[in-house]
Amino acid sequence: MSAAQVWSVDPRTGKQREQVASEATAQDVDRAVRAAHGVRAALADRAVRSAFLRTAADRLEAAKDRLVEAADAETALGVPRLTGELARSCYQLRAFADIVDEGAFLDVIINHPDDSATPPIPDLRRYKVPLGVVAVYAASNFPFAFSVPGGDTASALAAGCPVVVKAHPDHPATSELAAAALREAAAEHGIPEEVVGLVHGFDAGVELVRHPLITAAGFTGSVRGGRALFDAAAARPVPIPFHGELGSLNPVVVTADAAAERADEIGTGLAGSMTLGTGQFCVKPGLVLAPAGPAGDQMVKSLADAVARVPEGVLLDGRMRDNFVAGVSERAALPDVEAPVTPGAAGEHEVAAGFLTVPAARLAEEGPHDLLLEECFGPVTVVARYETDEEVTRVLSRLPGNLTATLHVSSEEAAGEGSGAALLAEVTPLAGRVVVNGWPTGVAVAYAQQHGGPYPATTSTSTSVGGTAVERWMRPVAYQSTPHSLLPPELRDDNPLNLPRRVDGRLEV
Amino acid sequence: MSAAQVWSVDPRTGKQREQVASEATAQDVDRAVRAAHGVRAALADRAVRSAFLRTAADRLEAAKDRLVEAADAETALGVPRLTGELARSCYQLRAFADIVDEGAFLDVIINHPDDSATPPIPDLRRYKVPLGVVAVYAASNFPFAFSVPGGDTASALAAGCPVVVKAHPDHPATSELAAAALREAAAEHGIPEEVVGLVHGFDAGVELVRHPLITAAGFTGSVRGGRALFDAAAARPVPIPFHGELGSLNPVVVTADAAAERADEIGTGLAGSMTLGTGQFCVKPGLVLAPAGPAGDQMVKSLADAVARVPEGVLLDGRMRDNFVAGVSERAALPDVEAPVTPGAAGEHEVAAGFLTVPAARLAEEGPHDLLLEECFGPVTVVARYETDEEVTRVLSRLPGNLTATLHVSSEEAAGEGSGAALLAEVTPLAGRVVVNGWPTGVAVAYAQQHGGPYPATTSTSTSVGGTAVERWMRPVAYQSTPHSLLPPELRDDNPLNLPRRVDGRLEV
Repeated sequence: MSAAQVWSVDPRTGKQREQVASEATAQDVDRAVRAAHGVRAALADRAVRSAFLRTAADRLEAAKDRLVEAADAETALGVPRLTGELARSCYQLRAFADIVDEGAFLDVIINHPDDSATPPIPDLRRYKVPLGVVAVYAASNFPFAFSVPGGDTASALAAGCPVVVKAHPDHPATSELAAAALREAAAEHGIPEEVVGLVHGFDAGVELVRHPLITAAGFTGSVRGGRALFDAAAARPVPIPFHGELGSLNPVVVTADAAAERADEIGTGLAGSMTLGTGQFCVKPGLVLAPAGPAGDQMVKSLADAVARVPEGVLLDGRMRDNFVAGVSERAALPDVEAPVTPGAAGEHEVAAGFLTVPAARLAEEGPHDLLLEECFGPVTVVARYETDEEVTRVLSRLPGNLTATLHVSSEEAAGEGSGAALLAEVTPLAGRVVVNGWPTGVAVAYAQQHGGPYPATTSTSTSVGGTAVERWMRPVAYQSTPHSLLPPELRDDNPLNLPRRVDGRLEV
Repeated sequence: MSAAQVWSVDPRTGKQREQVASEATAQDVDRAVRAAHGVRAALADRAVRSAFLRTAADRLEAAKDRLVEAADAETALGVPRLTGELARSCYQLRAFADIVDEGAFLDVIINHPDDSATPPIPDLRRYKVPLGVVAVYAASNFPFAFSVPGGDTASALAAGCPVVVKAHPDHPATSELAAAALREAAAEHGIPEEVVGLVHGFDAGVELVRHPLITAAGFTGSVRGGRALFDAAAARPVPIPFHGELGSLNPVVVTADAAAERADEIGTGLAGSMTLGTGQFCVKPGLVLAPAGPAGDQMVKSLADAVARVPEGVLLDGRMRDNFVAGVSERAALPDVEAPVTPGAAGEHEVAAGFLTVPAARLAEEGPHDLLLEECFGPVTVVARYETDEEVTRVLSRLPGNLTATLHVSSEEAAGEGSGAALLAEVTPLAGRVVVNGWPTGVAVAYAQQHGGPYPATTSTSTSVGGTAVERWMRPVAYQSTPHSLLPPELRDDNPLNLPRRVDGRLEV
């Protein structure tokens, strides 16, 4: 029996473009993982790693036209957005190179012997070492930034871990091109190409997370797929960390004073955020708590005007379109739900953006309207109109974990008057990132970024974007009473690599 | 039906001492967790937290006589050891108080807006917040340091998390006394006593890890019990981090040159380490790779002489004694296994220390001797005699993960000649702490400590001892574009709390 074929498909037409590869068999997966494991020593030198990451960015930029063309043909995300996404991915690779060079992520901690401690402290020196081969599960909606050359790959390589990427079926050709660019960059620095493996196919993804030489996994995708892989990772004879980003509603709270102050601005801004990338962002605002009354009405009117002007768009694949059309129609059919602008199918392959409204009281108790508290992927949001602040609190208390929570407050509330601080404290337990008077779409690549939140937003407390994402792929090791001549240079007293560290309790920069 | 009674038992006689409590029902567990959850805000202030931790140490010291007497009666660990363990626990509470005061564990990271980044960076400020109520599973073998007032409790409270401790059945009376001391300390600082919950009973432990308001768990115990709870934590509708320390063989490698240089010293030192606390340490050296030939023979002879002089001891409970007696006898019956000093039963309640020898070649391939690669709790170790360095490599490659790995090298090897550095690199993947020319027993409370290693040593990459243990109970939150008047003081530009932090990429101390 021959392996199933992997086709690149154009979502604008539903037609197959080309056969890219075959689905990886269990043997193929085993071969890729063993090969990656076999070359891990080639990443041991930090200077080589950072140079490799920078060259990877250069190579991706050099292949920009081919990459963006393939990605646009496979995802319909459009050339401008994909050009930006590739630029972001290259920036991210270089940012991790800087982090590798700085070395703070090694978390060097030294204790010299101290007989006054209880019990006495021997010579102890701790830093972090790479875990080993990392499995990366690419996302549908970011063919670069959360796929083959994305944050999981970049941070794992930065940590010193080879990767085997499971390509997303929505962009297999882009995945192959990106992997080729990364491998060329590796070869330029004497790193064997097996340091970046690539496999296709659903079964291959399951094999991958179960492979004994896989030491950790990064995932961006759906709750259903992510939870299945999380469960498989936890059920292994040797369980491994599974850093999965699964799903998020990304609630927004608009205070009455904020609506009174700038109803049009908030309505228009919301329209832009919820339809960005045809609503296919994991941080799309999916539930908006807006006040009942004239100011809230005006906000909804501005939202309606702006959404009605949004052109029809093409989703990433036909299955997503089917799910979107069915999802919005099921939601719109609930009692007391209205659709000022109706989302749904448009033409043979397109969808139209829209939004639903519902009285917030309907969401305050368990019932059929709980469907509105589940993420619906695509250009739709739910505006829940509240009568009282208590209703807001009740609805917020019923939400699952989120990547983001957003507050729109008035200028007086922003200045500390009224309930702004209390509201900030109220939404903090719900999310990994709290946005005030802005929109959650757009996830900056920065040291202070947190792209991860309470389950199901993520399956761990870590972030998949930003400087600390590298921590996911390392574990600490302490050396006790170890002669200096045997110690790795990172842990020597004279600090030959000039690393930030903590010595006898004191931080040294 | 009345709940099962919880008895304190004297392992020196096997007799019940007193009824301490009743096993917690599901309702009891729910009540304890909800109560702890309800008072979490009382831990929000860091100054209150550190003062509480210091007072907890004071209160435990004030109750020292009663605590040590109860613990000795329940565990037979002896007054000197328990006095030291209590002192260690108090030192640990104060060390975490210092960490709370310093505030580096909040991991404050600030990015000011930067339009030159791709994409542009908005104002982003990230720090870590407490997860919520933590479940702590007490260990049998450390009634203070890894139980109610131990490292999991201390680090969780330091993080700002209330705890509900599941007492170990080997020391319920000690657990109640210690919990009372912690609660008195809490009350002294206006913190409701529910901040430290305590439940007894096997079923209560399972209920606890499944409770929806439990946000994370710490565990020290067996592979079997720990894995069952880990699986339950992973199978929850909302999975939680489970930081479990499950089991460890703690291999020791003695090089030929080390044996030639100081056979007697190594043999005697090993005897002390493997019989410390009647062999009931999670870091007990359970497998020793020693060279064949005269120097190795002399090491084994010194070990035999020293172990033969070790007095009989009492294990923590009758079941452990039964397991030890059965375990050593099953191991000793394997082909080519000898017992220069026979471990096993002695008297009605005691056990005798001993050790086994085996040719290392027997451990180099899968077979019945794999039993020798499993931890055997109690005063026994296995000395595997190797002919070649390749045999050492083969045996090491077959070991599961460990808390520690220990090397004994010669003074020339320590100075960098020969294979010392290569051996250090070879054992690093096996363990969380590598000890050179010392013994793994004795786990210092220090910032650089790593008490945790590859599975089954621990179920996560974290440590349960040392300064970084507090990280287990926190998650990062980032605030985007948030007005200064709404920000928590930890994240303000003027740094009113004088915290170490990273600002625009640069570390500031």
